[in-house]
Amino acid sequence: MKTYLDCLPCFFRQALGATRAATDDERIQREVMDAVAEMIPGFPLEITPPEIAQEVYRAVYRITENDDPYREAKKQSNEKALSLYPKLKRIVADSDDPLLTACKLAIAGNSIDLGPQVEQYDLDSVIESTLDSPLAYDDYPEFRRAIESASNVLYLADNAGEIVFDKLFIAELCRDRKLNVTVVVREKPIINDATMEDAESVGLNALTTVITNGSDAPATILSQCSSQVRQLYHSVDMIIAKGQGNYESLSDEAANIFFFLRAKCPVVAVPLKVGVGDAILKGGGNIQ
Amino acid sequence: MKTYLDCLPCFFRQALGATRAATDDERIQREVMDAVAEMIPGFPLEITPPEIAQEVYRAVYRITENDDPYREAKKQSNEKALSLYPKLKRIVADSDDPLLTACKLAIAGNSIDLGPQVEQYDLDSVIESTLDSPLAYDDYPEFRRAIESASNVLYLADNAGEIVFDKLFIAELCRDRKLNVTVVVREKPIINDATMEDAESVGLNALTTVITNGSDAPATILSQCSSQVRQLYHSVDMIIAKGQGNYESLSDEAANIFFFLRAKCPVVAVPLKVGVGDAILKGGGNIQ
Repeated sequence: MKTYLDCLPCFFRQALGATRAATDDERIQREVMDAVAEMIPGFPLEITPPEIAQEVYRAVYRITENDDPYREAKKQSNEKALSLYPKLKRIVADSDDPLLTACKLAIAGNSIDLGPQVEQYDLDSVIESTLDSPLAYDDYPEFRRAIESASNVLYLADNAGEIVFDKLFIAELCRDRKLNVTVVVREKPIINDATMEDAESVGLNALTTVITNGSDAPATILSQCSSQVRQLYHSVDMIIAKGQGNYESLSDEAANIFFFLRAKCPVVAVPLKVGVGDAILKGGGNIQ
Repeated sequence: MKTYLDCLPCFFRQALGATRAATDDERIQREVMDAVAEMIPGFPLEITPPEIAQEVYRAVYRITENDDPYREAKKQSNEKALSLYPKLKRIVADSDDPLLTACKLAIAGNSIDLGPQVEQYDLDSVIESTLDSPLAYDDYPEFRRAIESASNVLYLADNAGEIVFDKLFIAELCRDRKLNVTVVVREKPIINDATMEDAESVGLNALTTVITNGSDAPATILSQCSSQVRQLYHSVDMIIAKGQGNYESLSDEAANIFFFLRAKCPVVAVPLKVGVGDAILKGGGNIQ
């Protein structure tokens, strides 16, 4: 997906949010805003939004001398999500279609995002409304068919906290299926994206294989990923990609891929004819 | 009021909105965004937001070669508001406290703003909810006392469309009182702010004196105003200032002034302990 002009003010707003999380020094905050403003004329809109966001966040981290401003927020997200885990597990087990319920919860968990979204969210109410509503973009039947014939799945995680929902989803995927699921997290902290430390802290490694992607982009930019990740991407039967960053970076790539996300802004929502905040389960690439 | 770092992404977003209203040429749209980005490091945060917004919009109008991109939107706002006028007049006349109802409607009309607000609004539902709710910031008792002893009032208008609500409010103010009300509109088109053309098209001139302020700021920046406006500002018994721009530019000025606005963003809402979208009737300056 290309970058829209609408993304430029959003990068600017995100830079301010991350800068404030990194430092209380208003002089440094202003310095970051000016630096990001000066970068804007150099951004080609032909590249994907996360490729630009990566440059913006790198500038924030360099100038504030803080390379993980959302460290504490990520920890809290993991703890909050873990506290919900037993209840969510029961909801999945008790539902008419446990796989669909686990899909919906995986999407609801994508609300834990400190990047693009403007509106505040309340996790409990997002979970409730996502479970109670049909998917706004619904390729669940195609996903269900695809998963039944898959053996090897690459699972591209998105955010801290959200990976607890991923853990629940992966447990449900593997319950009655012989699936080999490899979860990919970011190499280094970027926004509140999940890293190996987050995966370990929520016990995802005990359930399945977790690897890092070799990149600090808030997305999966294949050219930046490790050869292991790229090889898996092109060899697995199926890819599950969580979150808007992975959607933005991979929506034009050919693959047997399914995107699970909440639409965070009109740039993604409008072309898919859904509302901001809506739940999306969208097949892409080869299944189109 | 000084400018906050939060205002910088907002100027950027506003520039994009105005640019898109001015031209469909994406090359020019990008040119504007880059030009605004390049201006940002030069903005001193010690000045008020509308002083910066004025520079931003001037750049938009210069680069797009369109000095009134919201001309059609303003016309439609006036027509929509005029179509509601008879109904609103009856609501005021039938209410227990017609002055309070007219105050609330004057604030509801401030939702017609194409500048800072992010969320879309539906005018009819804003009117309904404003009438049904208490004012979130409520200096109505002070305002009521002040108006009873006033003879000369300066009324600083804000937006097109909204001036129909101002007309209704001024008619109510003058109904049983010997008041001399002078309405001030912007000298030149800026965003969707009301100019003399708008005042004439909604018949405000037939009701009271209307003058222009000598400035193209989306606010009342006294140093830019005509000597007539400045003289009136310092000599009248009372000033009524509509909208967030006038609040941002005059909240630190000494005067017997009352601000009527909907809070468009957290920068204004948070310090006043109200929510975004809330109705504010706030005394300022000498009445504090």
